[in-house]
Amino acid sequence: MSGKAAFIGIDWGTSNLRAAVLDGDGAVLRAVARPLGVLAVAAGRFEAVFEDVVGPWLGEFAACPVVACGMVGSRQGWCEAPYLPCPCDEPALAAGLVHPPGRYAGRVSIVPGAMVAGVGRAPDVMRGEEVQVFGALAPDAEDAVVCLPGTHSKWVVVRGRSIEHFATHMTGEVFELLGRHSILAKLMEGEAFDASGFRAGLARAREPGGLLHHLFSVRALNLVGRLPGTALHAFLSGVLLGHEVAAGLVLSGSPLEVVLAGRPELCGLYREALADHDVAAVVADDGASFRGLARVARRAGLIS
Amino acid sequence: MSGKAAFIGIDWGTSNLRAAVLDGDGAVLRAVARPLGVLAVAAGRFEAVFEDVVGPWLGEFAACPVVACGMVGSRQGWCEAPYLPCPCDEPALAAGLVHPPGRYAGRVSIVPGAMVAGVGRAPDVMRGEEVQVFGALAPDAEDAVVCLPGTHSKWVVVRGRSIEHFATHMTGEVFELLGRHSILAKLMEGEAFDASGFRAGLARAREPGGLLHHLFSVRALNLVGRLPGTALHAFLSGVLLGHEVAAGLVLSGSPLEVVLAGRPELCGLYREALADHDVAAVVADDGASFRGLARVARRAGLIS
Repeated sequence: MSGKAAFIGIDWGTSNLRAAVLDGDGAVLRAVARPLGVLAVAAGRFEAVFEDVVGPWLGEFAACPVVACGMVGSRQGWCEAPYLPCPCDEPALAAGLVHPPGRYAGRVSIVPGAMVAGVGRAPDVMRGEEVQVFGALAPDAEDAVVCLPGTHSKWVVVRGRSIEHFATHMTGEVFELLGRHSILAKLMEGEAFDASGFRAGLARAREPGGLLHHLFSVRALNLVGRLPGTALHAFLSGVLLGHEVAAGLVLSGSPLEVVLAGRPELCGLYREALADHDVAAVVADDGASFRGLARVARRAGLIS
Repeated sequence: MSGKAAFIGIDWGTSNLRAAVLDGDGAVLRAVARPLGVLAVAAGRFEAVFEDVVGPWLGEFAACPVVACGMVGSRQGWCEAPYLPCPCDEPALAAGLVHPPGRYAGRVSIVPGAMVAGVGRAPDVMRGEEVQVFGALAPDAEDAVVCLPGTHSKWVVVRGRSIEHFATHMTGEVFELLGRHSILAKLMEGEAFDASGFRAGLARAREPGGLLHHLFSVRALNLVGRLPGTALHAFLSGVLLGHEVAAGLVLSGSPLEVVLAGRPELCGLYREALADHDVAAVVADDGASFRGLARVARRAGLIS
């Protein structure tokens, strides 16, 4: 059962804006989604877009603060919230909130992103996923490996409920480019999911030869009649996910269990790829971003 | 010093057609190149394109046979020359020559491609590179690993002067897609070669994390100010070449020396990537395709 409206949360990413009226636990009371990601908003227009999307709620829920995360806090967003270095926990995110200039400065808070930095560490950055991670973890969880699959998948190592390290994998974007614009795309007959093609791709990814070679198997297996055109899209997906999961597990210290948060059908595919490595998957409930925003808002004293 | 005209050779690939009048060793006496690859020629138009490009030589060098290799022998080409299974040597290629229907059947021979096939082997295919390999090898070489860098790089294992096994890596195509159409492309300031960016990419490729993660370093290193926009294109190239070379060496049985054949500047980059693994590079002279065609033509008794 949902509680009383406590705040307005916004997950404002590169491509999309999702906003909701939420209770104190981050459960959704009202929601809206628009394809008005940061890339679609011209500089100086963020306040106007904010009013357009969230405006009706600002009066109706006059006591509710607004907390936003994602690319809205980047240099190209509404107001830059500098990346916080890892290790990075909920109190750090709460202490790092920034407020956009203009008429909503007193009402809107933007959560900073997180970064891996420092001598001898390969740098990495994220915005929005740091909030999703804290929403995906069980409330009492201290240590975990969290995987957020997507265009740029994140593998996040949490120790003592602090983000210790993370790594981005460009799996989704590479899949999109190869599945649409490569020589492989010409051989594909549709994009319907083919379970045996996907499994064959996962298996191929575990053989020697490297990703750049395995990609060509899409073509070679089809040419020799061992993989129909209708299975190629899923096979490519299996090859890429298989490579990501193998590398992600190693970089995360070979965990026995991974928490998955993301689109349910995508989490299902990652669950299968993890099972190949005898790693258990715990799929987080939907709404990790909003639950994470609630936790940060509470830490910041914005909600009680 | 070049000898007497012995045959006309054509390297007729996916994107380009290169033809030459050659002496018995495959040295070029006259040459022409046109962007009339198989993709640019409509079905049924191959004979006309052939006449258009090579026609003037057919009368002047009336005694010269014509030998062609590459995608011209594919199903989408002039006349299909079925792939020969590996192991595949020069006599097998000579015995597998096919002749296109029409008025040039008695004069034109097309060299078949080669394939890796069979239970338990990951299939792979090539057309044109099998000829290039035999042209790149020293005349008396028996065993070698040959790397042909390009859009679809080939790593070819030669034993007893026979192609035993090979693997295709989609390095060039992935580089093109990511360097032009990905989120990484937006950060790149030009495509001029940057040596330190390239070396940093090679080094990144040797760290743990996998290719899909290393690709994101293009963005992360730039964001944290450790790699300027002008170095990103070369860094991406280094990451991809580094991954290809590491995987190619393993699949080829960890050779101590690799023969490189391809565009000289590309061979230079591969030489550097190989040196990272303490592997020596022998860069073949230009013209491996035409030298290889001469060897096949001689084996087939077409030239003496």
